[in-house]
Amino acid sequence: MLISPLARRFFFKLGPYHPRNMSTIPARALRFSSRLETGRALAEDVWSIFNVANLPADCINLGQGYMNFAPPVWVKDAAVEALNTVACNHYSHPKGRLRLREAIKKIYSPELHRDLDVEKEILITSGANEGQYAVFTAFLDEDDEVIMFEPFFDQYLPSVTFNGGKPVYVPLHPPVNATGKFSSDEWKIDTEELKAAITPRTKMIIVNTPHNPVGKVFTKEELEMIAALAQEHDILVMADEVYDRLVFDREHIRIANLPGMWERTVTVGSAGKSFAATGWRVGWLIGPESIIRPTLAATTRIVFCSNSPLQEAAAVGFEQVQERKFFEIQRAEYIERRQILTDCFDALGLPYTYPEGSYFILLDISRVQFPHDYPFPESVLGRGRDFRACWFIAIEIGVSSIPVSEFYCVEHANIGEVFGRFAFCKDLDTLKRAAECFKKLKQYIV
Amino acid sequence: MLISPLARRFFFKLGPYHPRNMSTIPARALRFSSRLETGRALAEDVWSIFNVANLPADCINLGQGYMNFAPPVWVKDAAVEALNTVACNHYSHPKGRLRLREAIKKIYSPELHRDLDVEKEILITSGANEGQYAVFTAFLDEDDEVIMFEPFFDQYLPSVTFNGGKPVYVPLHPPVNATGKFSSDEWKIDTEELKAAITPRTKMIIVNTPHNPVGKVFTKEELEMIAALAQEHDILVMADEVYDRLVFDREHIRIANLPGMWERTVTVGSAGKSFAATGWRVGWLIGPESIIRPTLAATTRIVFCSNSPLQEAAAVGFEQVQERKFFEIQRAEYIERRQILTDCFDALGLPYTYPEGSYFILLDISRVQFPHDYPFPESVLGRGRDFRACWFIAIEIGVSSIPVSEFYCVEHANIGEVFGRFAFCKDLDTLKRAAECFKKLKQYIV
Repeated sequence: MLISPLARRFFFKLGPYHPRNMSTIPARALRFSSRLETGRALAEDVWSIFNVANLPADCINLGQGYMNFAPPVWVKDAAVEALNTVACNHYSHPKGRLRLREAIKKIYSPELHRDLDVEKEILITSGANEGQYAVFTAFLDEDDEVIMFEPFFDQYLPSVTFNGGKPVYVPLHPPVNATGKFSSDEWKIDTEELKAAITPRTKMIIVNTPHNPVGKVFTKEELEMIAALAQEHDILVMADEVYDRLVFDREHIRIANLPGMWERTVTVGSAGKSFAATGWRVGWLIGPESIIRPTLAATTRIVFCSNSPLQEAAAVGFEQVQERKFFEIQRAEYIERRQILTDCFDALGLPYTYPEGSYFILLDISRVQFPHDYPFPESVLGRGRDFRACWFIAIEIGVSSIPVSEFYCVEHANIGEVFGRFAFCKDLDTLKRAAECFKKLKQYIV
Repeated sequence: MLISPLARRFFFKLGPYHPRNMSTIPARALRFSSRLETGRALAEDVWSIFNVANLPADCINLGQGYMNFAPPVWVKDAAVEALNTVACNHYSHPKGRLRLREAIKKIYSPELHRDLDVEKEILITSGANEGQYAVFTAFLDEDDEVIMFEPFFDQYLPSVTFNGGKPVYVPLHPPVNATGKFSSDEWKIDTEELKAAITPRTKMIIVNTPHNPVGKVFTKEELEMIAALAQEHDILVMADEVYDRLVFDREHIRIANLPGMWERTVTVGSAGKSFAATGWRVGWLIGPESIIRPTLAATTRIVFCSNSPLQEAAAVGFEQVQERKFFEIQRAEYIERRQILTDCFDALGLPYTYPEGSYFILLDISRVQFPHDYPFPESVLGRGRDFRACWFIAIEIGVSSIPVSEFYCVEHANIGEVFGRFAFCKDLDTLKRAAECFKKLKQYIV
């Protein structure tokens, strides 16, 4: 079982309440499930360490991937309108509100080249996160293996292990010896490594495109290679496409559209990412009835249903995006945001990934030098070098980020320690202030 | 493993997509988890059968337990205000928004006779349902047993089995030969039956007070008996008190307050029930750090966090309830609602449970006669007599309800099939129209 060094440390630091340290009852009653000893579940995670609460108040937060601007006013107004009804304050059907399923059908049907069935092929979930968790609950049996490309969205790991699955890691490889900007497309899958990872226990492959944190938009050739292996070895594909509205420089290919793939693919979407409302907790799954029906059985028990008023608002969002050209306008805004950060990284002369999608930039921080005796908090010591570099940048430069080794298994963490992840889902003013701050980094680069 | 007859039937009716029926791939990829074969997870549940969509449009819905009125306008206004900020549209901390935890602390601290710690002892969840699911995820290992009193809230069963647990049932016994109204207090636990249900594998007891669907508010003596057994056998207690603001005729006792019980009890609450907003999906757990911390680890992976704007509204709700005397006013309104239904049941001369809490009345429908050749849909045939009686009442009388055998294991379903559950969380006009309809029932009573 893969447990990060911090998780191990934490495990022995549990303190007086931990049943193993207690001589009096309750002992058995408070013994937590063995599944919590998997998937880094009890470790102090990177989000807590690099939380605004732990950093100086004036530190500019490019760490966590949420916007510091509001959802579009016409989508927000739809939420208010929903709150002013009776029905939208009460339970939705576990499948989700019909209006939202209809609105998703309207947008996704042409994109998926099929007439989606709102009763059988679309399922609303309490955020994409819970949707993915429900797929794992619905399809994983003990020791089923799930392949994920590293770096991976960190929630996959415990979500898989909590449901009895075993994560199997296949790294994306960045270019060697990059000296400046390089495209996210240059992060490559080694086909032989992927083939070697497949076993008779392989149940699922997670394909996250656009990719968090790399920003990679998988090419048709890459997806065809994955699709061929999925069909040859009879593997389910979870297409995590929550950033599907944030693709900048190439066509977003949906793996569900490749020949023979609809039947074995569940596509994941997110209102939070699509409409700048990460706190609304509205996501969706699209796939064949054979995947949606068991997943409905799972989500019905996990959350029963998702919140009603914000589903209604998301429905209005999809109903009006075409007429308002909202996704096109939003994409242009994100391109402008990206430009501010990349200009300043260019000026620093540090290598970084130019992301074709999502809202993250991976900056190579291996040449950022910090004093060995810098007063780091205990929580970043004993982790990868990137934890210390990101902490140093947050304190000295005033811009927070997320160290990328967190998105790798222990064995491959060295690939990630080279990078810090900077989010550009922030308003222009904030990004410009961050760019100003970054000028101070020059003096620490060797 | 307990699978209802319908579940078994469904299992063999899965149709062409079911992997066992397929000769072509995908076969292994689409084989759903064995956990879906537990806990009635794939059965057509009672909520789908007795759904408004399946019933005549003019049928009065006293089936599902949601209100046909809106949350209080000042709570709703707080949701609108939250939507008008930036931060309340984005991620909350996985523990929940601090403002809501503070507001819950203010109300619950005096009720639990302790100064609750908002960082360690209060956890916000995506509805009480997800909170309970997260407790099972955090504390159950394979084959751990969970005792639940029958009739039980039907979600407990699959939520336990999905997390590897085994439900163990202890019936609440209604009085024998009741001829008219009888108090919910007359549903009794047989202490010897409870003792006999405890084994070395017993991990948890669920104590639901006020009780759905019985309306029973557990007495101090009953809770002391349960508490003594929990301590003697080192068992965790899940106190599902989501109807804690809807106690009418006696004091609501919290089992967490009994000597030695805080350390082993997690108390469950619900904004949906407290503020007439079942579609907001905001719930909370209160307990010692030893229970809250592992459960936080679970809920963080299941949903990451709960929706932000409606948490903020619930916070305002708790901040203002005392000054507005909201819970007192709401309670008086529910007492008036209950009266309308009980008056008409008295007039019919049928036995029924007079509920001391919650918003359900169990009506004895065993004397309601229907023709043997009545055109029942297939979904209610092959179930308990109560399914047919409730269907007949819905069609002929025009009032829908929920058959109570659904809330029992197969072995004890006969206790439940005597009753239909009628919800009175509806406005006065609706309840008065229902009472008018009930007059038609007289002719079918033998």
